[in-house]
Amino acid sequence: MISGRTKAFALFGSPVEHSLSPAMHNASFAELGLDCVYLCHDVVPSAIGAAVAGARAMGFAGFNVTMPCKAAVIEHLDELSPAARLMGAVNTVKREGDRLIGHNTDGAGLLRSVAERDFAVAGADVAVIGAGGAGSAVYTQAALDGAGRVSVFKRANASFGPTSQKIAALSERTGVSLTLTDVADEAALERAVREADIVVDATRVGMAPLESQSNVKEEWLRPGQAVVDTVYHPRETKLLALAAHAGATAIDGLGMLLWQAAIAEEIWLDVAMPVDRVREAVFGG
Amino acid sequence: MISGRTKAFALFGSPVEHSLSPAMHNASFAELGLDCVYLCHDVVPSAIGAAVAGARAMGFAGFNVTMPCKAAVIEHLDELSPAARLMGAVNTVKREGDRLIGHNTDGAGLLRSVAERDFAVAGADVAVIGAGGAGSAVYTQAALDGAGRVSVFKRANASFGPTSQKIAALSERTGVSLTLTDVADEAALERAVREADIVVDATRVGMAPLESQSNVKEEWLRPGQAVVDTVYHPRETKLLALAAHAGATAIDGLGMLLWQAAIAEEIWLDVAMPVDRVREAVFGG
Repeated sequence: MISGRTKAFALFGSPVEHSLSPAMHNASFAELGLDCVYLCHDVVPSAIGAAVAGARAMGFAGFNVTMPCKAAVIEHLDELSPAARLMGAVNTVKREGDRLIGHNTDGAGLLRSVAERDFAVAGADVAVIGAGGAGSAVYTQAALDGAGRVSVFKRANASFGPTSQKIAALSERTGVSLTLTDVADEAALERAVREADIVVDATRVGMAPLESQSNVKEEWLRPGQAVVDTVYHPRETKLLALAAHAGATAIDGLGMLLWQAAIAEEIWLDVAMPVDRVREAVFGG
Repeated sequence: MISGRTKAFALFGSPVEHSLSPAMHNASFAELGLDCVYLCHDVVPSAIGAAVAGARAMGFAGFNVTMPCKAAVIEHLDELSPAARLMGAVNTVKREGDRLIGHNTDGAGLLRSVAERDFAVAGADVAVIGAGGAGSAVYTQAALDGAGRVSVFKRANASFGPTSQKIAALSERTGVSLTLTDVADEAALERAVREADIVVDATRVGMAPLESQSNVKEEWLRPGQAVVDTVYHPRETKLLALAAHAGATAIDGLGMLLWQAAIAEEIWLDVAMPVDRVREAVFGG
């Protein structure tokens, strides 16, 4: 029951009409008995400054930002978390007094979904395929969280050089060994996946129209490994089916989605989102 | 169930925590099966420009404005309805394409609650006590709707002169006879009330701590008159009890509250708010 005291949270981005964030956060608020509500607003990058100023004027306690505004929002904030600064992307903003602090919970969300299955990132050997929004969030957070080694693979396109520089800077900043390799170098990819404790596919492979494909071969996988796909539609991608068949721990993309939301609620409200009950309510388990 | 497609409506003002607007509009949206939600945002006049720009950036389909922002919002809008321009106050804003149009539904809301009881304002003799936000909305709308005569009473304080000028201009603009008289002139007040078809008290008299008082005496009232109090807490004010006892039609302030909301929904969404069901849901009938 919304009243004049109900606190507003929001998602800014475009498009947002298919976002699952309202369903997740509103289910969580209901479970936690919080007088809060979460809405989506379609905001393009040229309007993000006005939306952020509006959120300040309206007293929003916090908001999320999604594509294509995750970088554009930064200049309108007062401060960034180390992860958001290194990623150059913000997905969560918290108001603290008059200041707006930008965070990025995407990488932490994925790693929390891995930790939930008893795989620690500290000291782990991590292979990340894809260096777009999700991939860069994951490799950056893995480095910040003290991974032993992070091997990143991406296509050798125009962004390979800039990504390589970002990764070199991140390695220098964190002391973690990070490498960037062309994903077409199958021998290097096989070696990295075989040696990895945690394998993350952060590409669109596995989602329609690429639902029959996997970047990774089954024989590279083994028990004792966590294999994560950021794709969650379908829930079991080709990669996850291969991983399960190889005896590895297959972790679907809903975990990242749920945990990035849970960490946003930790940041905004200092509460523990009931992740399992939200998963049940929104995704049927 | 809020999704990424849910349309946002809002109230801007301060304080808003006790506002009944979310309860009314959300009950109406639910009854009408509309995928819309209404929230309150605490906005002070110095922040109203940023809030309006934010509402544009976030694509709000419309919003309400309440104290103390009803005048301050005007400079941030693209166009005003005749009523809003004459009142110098906006309580409802509709987005049409990229333009924001300011309206004022307070006076129309009160007169709709009177029309609902089969009293037409066109040609009627109307007495209005009080010339603050509610009073000026009522006398302005009554003149725009073709009242035969409007007698306004207010205290002889610093705003008497400016109100007198506004009323003279309104009379010239509409061709309706309007007068402004000191409310302390009891003979004039008695005469106006006795002659009126519709008597409106738009002062705080009748609300605590003035709940035992009435600006009007019972013997001035009679059957065939509509007597309206803009106060709705208590529901039956001293004035309304006297009116009922005198055989007049007593109309409480919930009607104005409900109908200003209903007219806002007409403006925003071209729908007919189910006023009786909303009254029942929010106020128990």
